Amino acid sequence: MTEAQYKVPKGLAGVSVTDTRISKSASDGSLVYRGYPISEIAANAGFEETAYLVLNGRLPTRSELGTFTRGLLSRSKVDRRIFDIMRGLGKGSHPIDVIRTAVSALGSVDDERTVQEKEMSIESKMSVLAANSRRVPRGEAPRGPKEGLGFAADLLQMLTPKEASDFDRWVFERVLIFYMEHDMNASSFTVRVVASTQADPYAAASAGLASLKGPLHGGANEAAMEMLLDVKDPSKAAKFVDSAIEDGRKLMGFGHRVYKAYDPRARLCKGYLKEMLEKRGEDDTLYRLCDAIEREMWERKKIPPNLDYYAAPIFYLLGIEVPLYTPIFAAARVFGWMAHYNEQVEENKLIRPDSTYVGPSGLKYAPIEKR
Amino acid sequence: MTEAQYKVPKGLAGVSVTDTRISKSASDGSLVYRGYPISEIAANAGFEETAYLVLNGRLPTRSELGTFTRGLLSRSKVDRRIFDIMRGLGKGSHPIDVIRTAVSALGSVDDERTVQEKEMSIESKMSVLAANSRRVPRGEAPRGPKEGLGFAADLLQMLTPKEASDFDRWVFERVLIFYMEHDMNASSFTVRVVASTQADPYAAASAGLASLKGPLHGGANEAAMEMLLDVKDPSKAAKFVDSAIEDGRKLMGFGHRVYKAYDPRARLCKGYLKEMLEKRGEDDTLYRLCDAIEREMWERKKIPPNLDYYAAPIFYLLGIEVPLYTPIFAAARVFGWMAHYNEQVEENKLIRPDSTYVGPSGLKYAPIEKR
Repeated sequence: MTEAQYKVPKGLAGVSVTDTRISKSASDGSLVYRGYPISEIAANAGFEETAYLVLNGRLPTRSELGTFTRGLLSRSKVDRRIFDIMRGLGKGSHPIDVIRTAVSALGSVDDERTVQEKEMSIESKMSVLAANSRRVPRGEAPRGPKEGLGFAADLLQMLTPKEASDFDRWVFERVLIFYMEHDMNASSFTVRVVASTQADPYAAASAGLASLKGPLHGGANEAAMEMLLDVKDPSKAAKFVDSAIEDGRKLMGFGHRVYKAYDPRARLCKGYLKEMLEKRGEDDTLYRLCDAIEREMWERKKIPPNLDYYAAPIFYLLGIEVPLYTPIFAAARVFGWMAHYNEQVEENKLIRPDSTYVGPSGLKYAPIEKR
Repeated sequence: MTEAQYKVPKGLAGVSVTDTRISKSASDGSLVYRGYPISEIAANAGFEETAYLVLNGRLPTRSELGTFTRGLLSRSKVDRRIFDIMRGLGKGSHPIDVIRTAVSALGSVDDERTVQEKEMSIESKMSVLAANSRRVPRGEAPRGPKEGLGFAADLLQMLTPKEASDFDRWVFERVLIFYMEHDMNASSFTVRVVASTQADPYAAASAGLASLKGPLHGGANEAAMEMLLDVKDPSKAAKFVDSAIEDGRKLMGFGHRVYKAYDPRARLCKGYLKEMLEKRGEDDTLYRLCDAIEREMWERKKIPPNLDYYAAPIFYLLGIEVPLYTPIFAAARVFGWMAHYNEQVEENKLIRPDSTYVGPSGLKYAPIEKR
């Protein structure tokens, strides 16, 4: 018998499966993309610029950025057959299922040649698929991007007809940048496992979407918003948190495997949320509600909010339907997935772990009448 | 900074990521399903009986087997919308892409309620999807199962109109049993990673199919057959193997991460192949060709053939088109995937490994005109 040489903790917590140069989150609340602190990126960079950085390992020159931006926009037209497939799935379909099926189908329908072109096609079309993941299965006409708006503003106008101010758009772009990449998470690892078989980027991206379907990975921003809508009143925060703790219910949007003190993305988003309301001159109940629940959770459990918690009310203020929050996550994260795909393929080794057999052995077959 | 506690070899070779009671392969050429040696199963059990064993951990009583078999057959009708989607992908589509998209779409279209019913639906429909993965995208009418034939005979008659003898059908059933399960392989691991997010079985199965798309996992039986058809003449085996070694070409159908001396499934299939030809009274060139290449490889490289190598000529004799060989693998392996799905979910922990960041840090954003 061969015995496994290592036995590692279930869930592979704390098990480093690869070297990476893409990004790093750490428990002190730091996050870097390709060496740049997330705050540095949030303050300065646009979505395409950051995507280029994550994919290529360095910030683009103006000409590289232009080529990349045009490359994305020129691939944003989704074939009618893909929309037909989405329509065929029917109006009750889960948006992530719809996007997964559409990206999987793209693997047959798309006619890109190189791996890089395939990736750009997936990255570009995912935002169109995400924005239309509820509309098209319901039989509504698909919405498409508008020439020259840029990735983030385009996704926003496809998601909602509500007018957005420049600041709103700037904030939405920051949130997309935060969702783009986050070192080794469940979906990026899924993408790497599939990439390691030398499968194409469509297969890898559809597998990433499969893992986003699970509530332990995707869906948290939606659940966080539902919680906020449910509690409504900041003065009810203490009672709500108490009863959740009492019932052993996990609050969605809190806690993180890496960030124990705070999630740097959540902290930035919290500031944006406040500023959005101030700039609009709107009532700040939503901000005070978020802040109140955050304080109560910290006081009782020392658990900080994560990105999902503060992305949710931002999406809400922007007028986006709650079931589209995880599709937005997917539309941004696909850039990170493709960076992981490339890094995996560059120095590939098939990811094929071992298991420890703990069942019986040497059993004899007994005829069915003797069982 | 949190540092990863363990660093494991890339590809996780020899790294045990979980305990399992499903199956175990070992380098001495042994393979057990739930404690039963594969030879014991091959000599005695049918496909449904083995599937029940793999899924439930013990052989079924007659009544349990009847319920399971009827449960599969009653779920074999594939919704017209799924065939429409497959047709929409077009005739050049790769069969594994087609099946992945169809299974992904099933996640929206199927109306099963419990996890177990969803799994049976996937298991049952996968064989119909596999058999039709070339026909339907080409615009041909789908073929369906026939009442009462049983899983293996049904899949065979859907795959090819060629008449099969009882012995041929018995052999095909053995090959399906061998493809059903094989401890921790790339696709079963993918399924477990996706299952660990608490995604549904459709998501998990579609991700398994995504990883089968990669030539390092799926496709080997097809490549092996193409090689056999290419060499044709047993007397050319030595020269062929020599030139392959000289050119550094890997021969598909040879070598295995676990079985170093021999693959027990390949050995059994080799015997079946010989017997099929004898019973048919046919020319035994194909057998002698396989045997000759096997001997030459063993003599030079001490690498034994694996299951794919001897499954391929069996499928060929049965009259099945080569591009359907990997779909057959998928139609059988899905039962193993669902067993892994269940085992993962039973004592779940999100599979979320760590990585070691080896890139730069503390970089400062430079405005685009300064790059």
